[in-house]
Amino acid sequence: MKNVLAAMTGSILIAGLLVTTSVFAQSTIDKKEKNMKKSIGAKTFVFPTPVFVVGSYDTSGRPNTMVVAWGGICCSKPPCVAIAIREATYTYGNIMARKAFTISIPSEKYLREADYFGIVSGRTEDKFAATKLTPVKSDLVDAPYVKEFPFVVECSVIKIEKLGSHTLFIGEIKDVKADEAVLGNDGAPDIAKIKPMIFNPANRAYYGIGKYLGDGFSEGKKIKE
Amino acid sequence: MKNVLAAMTGSILIAGLLVTTSVFAQSTIDKKEKNMKKSIGAKTFVFPTPVFVVGSYDTSGRPNTMVVAWGGICCSKPPCVAIAIREATYTYGNIMARKAFTISIPSEKYLREADYFGIVSGRTEDKFAATKLTPVKSDLVDAPYVKEFPFVVECSVIKIEKLGSHTLFIGEIKDVKADEAVLGNDGAPDIAKIKPMIFNPANRAYYGIGKYLGDGFSEGKKIKE
Repeated sequence: MKNVLAAMTGSILIAGLLVTTSVFAQSTIDKKEKNMKKSIGAKTFVFPTPVFVVGSYDTSGRPNTMVVAWGGICCSKPPCVAIAIREATYTYGNIMARKAFTISIPSEKYLREADYFGIVSGRTEDKFAATKLTPVKSDLVDAPYVKEFPFVVECSVIKIEKLGSHTLFIGEIKDVKADEAVLGNDGAPDIAKIKPMIFNPANRAYYGIGKYLGDGFSEGKKIKE
Repeated sequence: MKNVLAAMTGSILIAGLLVTTSVFAQSTIDKKEKNMKKSIGAKTFVFPTPVFVVGSYDTSGRPNTMVVAWGGICCSKPPCVAIAIREATYTYGNIMARKAFTISIPSEKYLREADYFGIVSGRTEDKFAATKLTPVKSDLVDAPYVKEFPFVVECSVIKIEKLGSHTLFIGEIKDVKADEAVLGNDGAPDIAKIKPMIFNPANRAYYGIGKYLGDGFSEGKKIKE
């Protein structure tokens, strides 16, 4: 009996060693994999981020804009969009006071104007005058949008969340409006005509929209076919 | 004196009529402008929206994913990203319980898998098994990411805001990780190699990233030159 136990223990030890060796070999292979992910640090990198031109009025009624890449849709019912803004910006005080903002989506041909909106402050510059763009008062919310940009979203602030360097303004979308020229035959806005930009936070550069790849809620069905 | 006043009043009336006529004529011209914006209604349309594949564990430790287009960066310090999720989803319960999630950015070649993640529920389907993709446990947060996707963001939930149909989960970014294959010579992630997708909410279709257009915080300086 003692011998049997000794033999069994031996087998278990050998089996254990084999398993350990095997796991070690596997782990070595994993580390050598080409696709192993490299840590880049706690950065605000996601792809894509948008180029939202945010419109607001100051206390004297002067229209201002800024460019925001930190934001996105945040609710379907009610329809809401969130934008994150630093307290130091002129827009921050404007939205705090008026509880409204617009988002105008610039076509890629307005890259220069959109970028300018993010470089200077409305505290010292009249950004509309400098860019020769036209503020239009929203008929629904207390904020202006950019007439020359093909697509606009009009928002009323329903929630404000201070997060850290940025404060999140959550705006309920009261309407979206588009130039007739960017609507498709079905009356829906056509992204290929709007030509929105995307912002790449990793190299702080602007990119266009690429080619159509496939339909949502459709392509995935092929997985099970 | 009476005559003078009458004459002045007459002039003011005439001037008033001229102004009214002029404003009316201008307004008529405005309405005829080709670029006049058309109201589309209170829709969740902005361009672009992202294709975030959100990873989470359920209470039994089973990895799950879903695809989220409602979200974006929401703070720089601490670095945070927000994702909006309906209470009915399996992911909602997972993140509520674990207070962590990841975002894996699929390359466009994974369109089908990403779309599948948005069609079926983790309550009834093992999405990793169905797509033959590999869950990897984050070393920093209690959530899995998708090994085959080239770029991942690991998040710890710091705030939860119920907005309506969707609840906003604000995650502090603990690390971002990328495949070596998508890093540029400078060690930074290269969007042209990641090939992220964008989602167009107006036609519910996926698009690629287009061409480089220009540098941020640079192009705008030409406005004043």
